[in-house]
Amino acid sequence: MEEMETETTKRLQTEIETLKNISEPCQCGTTRYSYSKAYKEGVSYVRGVMEDCGLKTREDGVGNLIGTLPGTEPELSKILSGSHLDTVRCAGAFDGIAGVLCAIEAARMVKESGVPLRHTYEALGMIGEEGTRFGKALLGSQFIAGIYGTDELDEFVGTEDGKTMRQAMNEYGLSGELDGVSRKDENIKAFLEIHGEQGPVLEQGQKEIGIVDTIVGLSWLVVKVTGQAGHSGTVPMNLRKDAGTGAFHLLCRIHDYVYENYCGQATLTAGQVTLSPGSMNSIPGQCEFSLDIRSGEEEIIRDILKHLEQYAEEVSEKYSMQVEVQELTRKEPVKMNTELAGGIEKTCEELGYTNMRLNSGAGHDSMIFAKLWNTAMIFLPNRDGISHHPDEWIDYEAMEAGSRVLYEMIRKLDKEDE
Amino acid sequence: MEEMETETTKRLQTEIETLKNISEPCQCGTTRYSYSKAYKEGVSYVRGVMEDCGLKTREDGVGNLIGTLPGTEPELSKILSGSHLDTVRCAGAFDGIAGVLCAIEAARMVKESGVPLRHTYEALGMIGEEGTRFGKALLGSQFIAGIYGTDELDEFVGTEDGKTMRQAMNEYGLSGELDGVSRKDENIKAFLEIHGEQGPVLEQGQKEIGIVDTIVGLSWLVVKVTGQAGHSGTVPMNLRKDAGTGAFHLLCRIHDYVYENYCGQATLTAGQVTLSPGSMNSIPGQCEFSLDIRSGEEEIIRDILKHLEQYAEEVSEKYSMQVEVQELTRKEPVKMNTELAGGIEKTCEELGYTNMRLNSGAGHDSMIFAKLWNTAMIFLPNRDGISHHPDEWIDYEAMEAGSRVLYEMIRKLDKEDE
Repeated sequence: MEEMETETTKRLQTEIETLKNISEPCQCGTTRYSYSKAYKEGVSYVRGVMEDCGLKTREDGVGNLIGTLPGTEPELSKILSGSHLDTVRCAGAFDGIAGVLCAIEAARMVKESGVPLRHTYEALGMIGEEGTRFGKALLGSQFIAGIYGTDELDEFVGTEDGKTMRQAMNEYGLSGELDGVSRKDENIKAFLEIHGEQGPVLEQGQKEIGIVDTIVGLSWLVVKVTGQAGHSGTVPMNLRKDAGTGAFHLLCRIHDYVYENYCGQATLTAGQVTLSPGSMNSIPGQCEFSLDIRSGEEEIIRDILKHLEQYAEEVSEKYSMQVEVQELTRKEPVKMNTELAGGIEKTCEELGYTNMRLNSGAGHDSMIFAKLWNTAMIFLPNRDGISHHPDEWIDYEAMEAGSRVLYEMIRKLDKEDE
Repeated sequence: MEEMETETTKRLQTEIETLKNISEPCQCGTTRYSYSKAYKEGVSYVRGVMEDCGLKTREDGVGNLIGTLPGTEPELSKILSGSHLDTVRCAGAFDGIAGVLCAIEAARMVKESGVPLRHTYEALGMIGEEGTRFGKALLGSQFIAGIYGTDELDEFVGTEDGKTMRQAMNEYGLSGELDGVSRKDENIKAFLEIHGEQGPVLEQGQKEIGIVDTIVGLSWLVVKVTGQAGHSGTVPMNLRKDAGTGAFHLLCRIHDYVYENYCGQATLTAGQVTLSPGSMNSIPGQCEFSLDIRSGEEEIIRDILKHLEQYAEEVSEKYSMQVEVQELTRKEPVKMNTELAGGIEKTCEELGYTNMRLNSGAGHDSMIFAKLWNTAMIFLPNRDGISHHPDEWIDYEAMEAGSRVLYEMIRKLDKEDE
C-alpha cells in the first residue's frame, strides 16, 4: 500500500525516525532501557516535540513524561492519553512510541483547531512498560496507579546490571522522592491508549483501526515430567519411561483441546522445552516445558487448566511417570470500558475508518488504569503482525488515523458533561 | 542377591576396585580417556594382572594391550577375547574393563588346569572404544581391523583439548609407527567379547548370561521443523505456524508407530529438542529434534524411516510448515556368528547358567571384528540396566560365570580341529 503523505504523516515519520536512532549500542534495532542515557535523550526529544505543540511538560518522580494542555475549566476531570517510551532490546521503532506520538498529535489538532478544551488534557510517555530492565513490566503505570511506591525502589533490581531501581534513578537524575507520582485519587475522566496490535488480526481482516474489548488474562505454567533416563539403544520400548514421550503426548492433547474448543477465544503456547540429560543417545529422564495460556474469558482459562490437570493424570498413568504442573503467574482478564469502546467504534464509522473489535493478547499500561478509570485501547495494524523486532512497522497513515480518532474522542468526552 | 565369595570373585573385586580409582580428576566415578596419564596407569596395572597369570604382554602401535598365552601348536589360528580399557567421563567401574578382566581370568583357568592350549590365546585390552576423546568410537578395534591407519592419526582431533591423535599418542609415549597394528590378514579362529548388557533385559528376565544375536543397526537423524515465530498472546491459534506443535505431533506419531509395530524389535528415541526463539512468551518459529532409531533388522529401520518421511509430509501439509529430515549417521545391523552363539548357549546349559538370546542396542568392538572373524558376545546383567554412570554394577559372581563360559568355549574351540 502506498502511503498518502500529509503534514501529519511527514511529522510522524520524522519523529519515529529520530527516536529509532536514539538507542543504546546494540546489534540491531533500537534499545532504550528505562533510566539509560538513550532513554534520557529520548525523553528530551519527545519533550521538545510536546513543547513545540504547546504542551507544558514535566517528568514525575519515577520518570514518566507528562505533557499538559490546560483546559479552560481546570476544576474538571482530566482526559489522558499515552503509552510508553522504553523498549525491549533490539526493538522496532513503533512499540509504545507510536501511542505517545499519537497522543501528542491529538493535542496538536486541538491547538490547530483554535477551539480549546474545557477539560485539561495530558499526553503521557511512560517508563518501564516492557519490564526489560528490572524484570517487572508496567512499572510507570503501576507507580501512577499507586500500586508501587517507595519500597519497590529498593526491591526491584536490574536483571542485567544488578542495580536497584533507586540506584538507576539516582544515576538518571531522579532523587527517589515520589510525591505526586501516584494519581489514584485524582479525578480522571478517561485514559485512552493507542498501540500497535503486535499481531496479525487487523492486517488479515484488512481493518484500519482495532478497538480492544479485553486485555486477556493469562496463566504461565511449568510442567515437569519425570521418567527414567537410559541408553537409547539398550532399553526396549516397553521397559522405558521416556519423559519426552509423556510430555509430547500431553502437549499434543492440550494443544488440540484448545484448538478444537477455543480457537478464536484462547491461545496456548509451549515456548520452552528442556530434555535431560539431553544427548542424542539418551532416553530423556526428565522433560520440562512452559505453557502460556491466555484468554479474554476467565472461565476458559479455568477450563483449559482443568483439562491440563486431567490429561496430566492420564499421561502419568499411561506412561508410569510423574507429572507436576506448577503455575508461576496468573492474571485475570481486564475488560476495557464498553462505553468508550462503543464511542471509538462510532467515531471510526463517522471518520470512515474500517474497524473491528478484538482482544489484546499482550499486556499494556491500560490494564493498570482500567481498574481506576474509564479506559480504552485503540490498536493500529502491525505489518505481518511483527513486533519486538527491528522489522516492526506501522504505516504513518495508520498513526494519523489513530490520532484523528483519538482527537475526535477527546472532543466528544470534553463535551459530554457540558 | 548375596554373592558367594570365591577366589575368583575376590580377585575380580580387587581388580575392579583398583581400576575404579585409576582416574583423571573428575566430579564422580571413573574417567580414563585414551592416552591420558590415568589410561597409562590403568594399562600398567592390567599388564601386571596379565603377567601375574603368565601372559606375555605387549602394547601395539596405537596402545591396544595384548596378553598372549602361546599355544603348543603356534602355526594354528589364534583365539582372541577382550574388550576395552577406556571409559566415558564419570563412568562406572565395569564398562569394558569387566570383559578384559574376564578374558584374563579365562587364561588363568587355562593355566590352573595344567593343560595347555594347542591354539595361541590372546586377552585384549583395547583403546578408544568409547569415542569420548576424539569423537570417534571403536578406535582400537578399527586400527586392528585395518580400517584406520596412518592418515587417521592426523585427522582425528580431541574434542576437548584439540590435539590430534598423533600428538596425543606421542605425549603418551607412542611414536606413531603402526607396523603390526593391523591384524586383518592374521589367522584368527574366533573373537569372543564379554560385556555388561547396559540395559535391563537380562535382569528383568532373571538370566545370568546373555548371548548376542545381533548388534543393532542405527539411524541418527535431525529433524528441523520451520514455522513462524510470534508473540504468544497476539497471534490467534488459527493464524499460527507453531513449529513446536508440528514437531510434537510428528514425534508422537512416529513414536506410536514404532511402539505399536516394533515394540520388541526396534527403539526410537528423541533425546534432544530445541525450540527457537525459546522464550516463554514466544511461539516457536523453529523446532529441531534428534531421532535415534535402532533395530537388529535393516528392513525395520527402513520401514520406520519411510513412515517418518510420510508423517513429516503430512505434518508439513496440515500445519503449513517446512519439515526437513536429515540423516547424520547410518549403521547396518551386525550379526554375530550363529555357531559360536549356539556353542555359548550349549555351554551355559552344561554349566547350569540361565541364559537368553538378545540383541545389543549399543555398539561394541565386536561389530568391527564380526566382519573379519567368527565373533560372539556374552552379556552380563547390569544392575537396574545402568551404565555410563558411577552407579553401574555387575555382580562379581556374574563376572565369574562369564569367565567360566569363556574358558569352556576356548577349550571347545581349541579341540574343534584336533
